[in-house]
Amino acid sequence: MDTTHELPERFRASGSTCGIKDSGQPDLALFISETPAAAAGVFTTNRVVGAPVDVSRNRVPAESVRAVVINSGNANACTGEDGQQAALTMTAGVASALNCDPEQVLVCSTGIIGVPLPLDVITAGLPKAVVSSQKNGSGFRDAAVAMMTTDTFPKLASSDVVTVTGKIRVSGAGKGAAMIAPNMATMLAVIMTDASLNSAQCDAILRFAVDRSFNCISVDGHMSTSDTVLLLANGASGFPVNTDADETAIRGAVTKVCQELATDIIRDAEGSEHFITVDVFGFDTRQTAFQIAKEVAESALVKTAITGNDPNWGRITSAAGYAGVEFDPNHLSLTINGTSVYRFGNPVPFDASALSQKMQQKDVHLLLELSGGPRFGNHSVRFWTSDLTQDYVRLNSEYTT
Amino acid sequence: MDTTHELPERFRASGSTCGIKDSGQPDLALFISETPAAAAGVFTTNRVVGAPVDVSRNRVPAESVRAVVINSGNANACTGEDGQQAALTMTAGVASALNCDPEQVLVCSTGIIGVPLPLDVITAGLPKAVVSSQKNGSGFRDAAVAMMTTDTFPKLASSDVVTVTGKIRVSGAGKGAAMIAPNMATMLAVIMTDASLNSAQCDAILRFAVDRSFNCISVDGHMSTSDTVLLLANGASGFPVNTDADETAIRGAVTKVCQELATDIIRDAEGSEHFITVDVFGFDTRQTAFQIAKEVAESALVKTAITGNDPNWGRITSAAGYAGVEFDPNHLSLTINGTSVYRFGNPVPFDASALSQKMQQKDVHLLLELSGGPRFGNHSVRFWTSDLTQDYVRLNSEYTT
Repeated sequence: MDTTHELPERFRASGSTCGIKDSGQPDLALFISETPAAAAGVFTTNRVVGAPVDVSRNRVPAESVRAVVINSGNANACTGEDGQQAALTMTAGVASALNCDPEQVLVCSTGIIGVPLPLDVITAGLPKAVVSSQKNGSGFRDAAVAMMTTDTFPKLASSDVVTVTGKIRVSGAGKGAAMIAPNMATMLAVIMTDASLNSAQCDAILRFAVDRSFNCISVDGHMSTSDTVLLLANGASGFPVNTDADETAIRGAVTKVCQELATDIIRDAEGSEHFITVDVFGFDTRQTAFQIAKEVAESALVKTAITGNDPNWGRITSAAGYAGVEFDPNHLSLTINGTSVYRFGNPVPFDASALSQKMQQKDVHLLLELSGGPRFGNHSVRFWTSDLTQDYVRLNSEYTT
Repeated sequence: MDTTHELPERFRASGSTCGIKDSGQPDLALFISETPAAAAGVFTTNRVVGAPVDVSRNRVPAESVRAVVINSGNANACTGEDGQQAALTMTAGVASALNCDPEQVLVCSTGIIGVPLPLDVITAGLPKAVVSSQKNGSGFRDAAVAMMTTDTFPKLASSDVVTVTGKIRVSGAGKGAAMIAPNMATMLAVIMTDASLNSAQCDAILRFAVDRSFNCISVDGHMSTSDTVLLLANGASGFPVNTDADETAIRGAVTKVCQELATDIIRDAEGSEHFITVDVFGFDTRQTAFQIAKEVAESALVKTAITGNDPNWGRITSAAGYAGVEFDPNHLSLTINGTSVYRFGNPVPFDASALSQKMQQKDVHLLLELSGGPRFGNHSVRFWTSDLTQDYVRLNSEYTT
């Protein structure tokens, strides 16, 4: 997770401390493209959103974004008209230091909600953030650290792709570790590439990747008011994207980076002891497979069974059964960490204590497969989640307001 | 909850011990109507269902049901063709003792899944269950006790209605206390009335009542493979139901009985410390209000906040925000136990420690109200749930297979 990752060509980044957090930890992250970048964004679908979501959502897709500024420690959400103004002021501050238009700057905030943003310390910190930005992996890592709230480690990923015409790089930084009071610990990610894409291509690639990464993770099913994923493509690799194959290769790299960041969030889930991968195979559409994977992954009873290293297949198959997909259970099979426990609608005898032993490792893998009947087909989905522990409840129920 | 409740005219009930449970606790409940009763049922919508659900679902609506037999300790689910045969044999055993057709008997089972039903002890117990049935409240209570699995108290309710022509009674017994391993502790309820209704009226009344009771409770969002609610109406009160007003009065009594049983299930939720009522007012349809109530009630973060007596309004309003209803947050208000904390989209200053103090009582009331904008209207929904405690996780994660 914390190996060395480098930025794509002509991107810079910094992480600094402007003084939002009482802890004195870094709280201001900045990502800069030295040349205008095409950009796209995917945002929370929550009806209640933070001011930065409003501002950034209005500015993408775009062809000439120069920077993304992110503060942690305060979400600037439920802060009314002043909050809106504060988000605009943040982008103006960066624009002034970069000598560009405020419209070319995107903004995200994460942290406590309902508290006015300490705008003075942020605006004072912005010129320093610009000046201290670096092209190397250390600036990139500093930025990822400055995005953290309850995260226990910074989340970075990168992938190099060799296209027909040359090498391009995709690099991303993310944050998120479920939601913990009193802040709503938003999921944020900034993905950068030196590939040459227009904003429509960025948008399509980002939606594809998010559908297979950030939209396939769940810690507690709660959607934050500020979730944001941004993709910037500045074309600085110098290589044109000429073929569908190139675009597919870049899309694959963006998806891989998004999946690494998304699964890092699950690995960092508060109070969790298991990292759970739910694979659902054999459905007629991606959507039906997704419904089943999500229902299984979000079941409190499935999660607590895994906490207890209990191969309780009944909780898993019954969660699949109430997902709203009209499949025939007589065609359903389930394996847990490679052991077949339910096959074509019937329990399979298995060594429960041996399987329980296997489940004591951090990674648990559930594979649900449909092999015939209604809704049978060749679509699959992979979903990731964490278990539900007493520690999760303790962390989330301690009095905080 | 455990006050004296009597059965309607010409109903009998018994609870006995036939030997399914290792604990030696009562495990066989029987409800008999001395005259054929119109009947309707509402069943789990899970695709994976127990054999008794298959059998009973095929027999209602019906005009001449004579009995409902219920065993606890074994759910007869995921037991294949043998399980189907076992469920049919149970109804045949009761029919033989009552000298009626097996088709006139309904069956439910609750307890561990994937284990063959010990049919011999049940069939041996059935004649005794018929013989020991009583018309009084004590037989009724015994039956409710024999339905219990992880329940800590039997669940009974009754309501008398004075119609234009005379008095009728509605009485019901239920069981359920969330789901706890290894059994999937199904929700079951049998509602009886001496009102004179046909099966179509039974069906309409039961669906109305279930929509406002058992469909409005959630402990952990997990739907069992065996959930069943049955309504039997034998007409033994001797009074015809002549007017819409009479039917509405009976529907009201059935709804009241269902709500009492449903909320008893929440009060008996494993490991819970709070009984939470979520009221949602001011939406354009019952369905939109329901979506919001359910999303709030099932949010792990809302539940854990309440466990911690934390008036964390951000978790509540954001859960409402992601319910998939396109309302305008600027028209949303929230009170917690009578204290206004969020009004027209803005936080309201309140004494957090005083409100937290108030939340230390068992009952917590959340009231979300929409007062204008899209989806505004005059529909409301009441939903009940429990909080999420470390004890819940402990109970559900202890190794059990």
